[in-house]
Amino acid sequence: MFGPVIDELISSLRGLPGVGPKSAQRMALHLLERRRDAAHRLAISLKVAAEKIGRCRLCRTLTETDLCIICSDQKRENFQLCVIETPADLLAIEHSGTYKGLYFVLLGHLSPIDGIGPEEIGIDQLVDRLSEDNITELILATNLTVEGEATAHYISVRAKDKGVIVSRIAHGVPMGGELEYVDGSTLSHAFSSRKKI
Amino acid sequence: MFGPVIDELISSLRGLPGVGPKSAQRMALHLLERRRDAAHRLAISLKVAAEKIGRCRLCRTLTETDLCIICSDQKRENFQLCVIETPADLLAIEHSGTYKGLYFVLLGHLSPIDGIGPEEIGIDQLVDRLSEDNITELILATNLTVEGEATAHYISVRAKDKGVIVSRIAHGVPMGGELEYVDGSTLSHAFSSRKKI
Repeated sequence: MFGPVIDELISSLRGLPGVGPKSAQRMALHLLERRRDAAHRLAISLKVAAEKIGRCRLCRTLTETDLCIICSDQKRENFQLCVIETPADLLAIEHSGTYKGLYFVLLGHLSPIDGIGPEEIGIDQLVDRLSEDNITELILATNLTVEGEATAHYISVRAKDKGVIVSRIAHGVPMGGELEYVDGSTLSHAFSSRKKI
Repeated sequence: MFGPVIDELISSLRGLPGVGPKSAQRMALHLLERRRDAAHRLAISLKVAAEKIGRCRLCRTLTETDLCIICSDQKRENFQLCVIETPADLLAIEHSGTYKGLYFVLLGHLSPIDGIGPEEIGIDQLVDRLSEDNITELILATNLTVEGEATAHYISVRAKDKGVIVSRIAHGVPMGGELEYVDGSTLSHAFSSRKKI
């Protein structure tokens, strides 16, 4: 309707997660009608980020430097290592303020059907690190999905050989959650993982 | 948390309409984790669009050429001119397939408080066109907001001097709308604009 240049902009905005055809059109027209400066700024920051962002040498999270902010922070407790699937998980844990150790970001999970094996998500690197560094506890915080559980199980088997304590974060009814509104699979997990008091 | 490059990307993604801090973070991480190609493509199309897209010489809609697709289409009925606020309105009318005339896109509405007068939204150009071209009917399809109504009123006064028929699209209860669920101001408009049958 508007010609190939705007159509291409709309179509490439759809590459953003959660953006459908209507939102993409709205975004494109908004930028072109009155926010050309924002369009320019976004174009530049996309280009710079896509070129500069690599992965932390130690924990594999996204970073623009050789070592990420957390890995290069001397104040973190370097005997604990928490394994997570994505940088967004890292952010969520950091925001909770509950954990002061180091991380290892898989950037994915085992998924043989998609050709993602231990090598692709850096499990060899993780196991090597357990031998070299003075890590005594490995906390598995992959998601509670079939793939996340399988990944956690695989890592736990490999890590136990290295003589570290391996733990899995607890899953169950969330804080403030009313049983009435909790989904069935969470409830059955909460029952099967019940603890003696 | 991730360093200045990713933070700048997240912050500039917030320039998109409807994107809050959480969505911007999700978009940035998604692009960097597995869609660098999409990030590059978006960067290029934003740059190209911001540089190339101008306004149609006749109807002022966004276009990359001197005349937009509709203005250069000889099959459109060139005696009708429909005044709308945005290119998105044009798209909505085109999708309804109901109108075969030409458009005039204000790209805004009168809003003295923001310093937007008749000149900024091209009303002089619109009135000039009524004198020059063989337009016999001007259809006002600005939004039914205070500003949209004021804009329609202002244009109607200026256009009537030119001897063209001026009409306003109908407003009221939408098709398939059940009275029970229609908002109060639409209902009162529907009553005050009732037609004898």
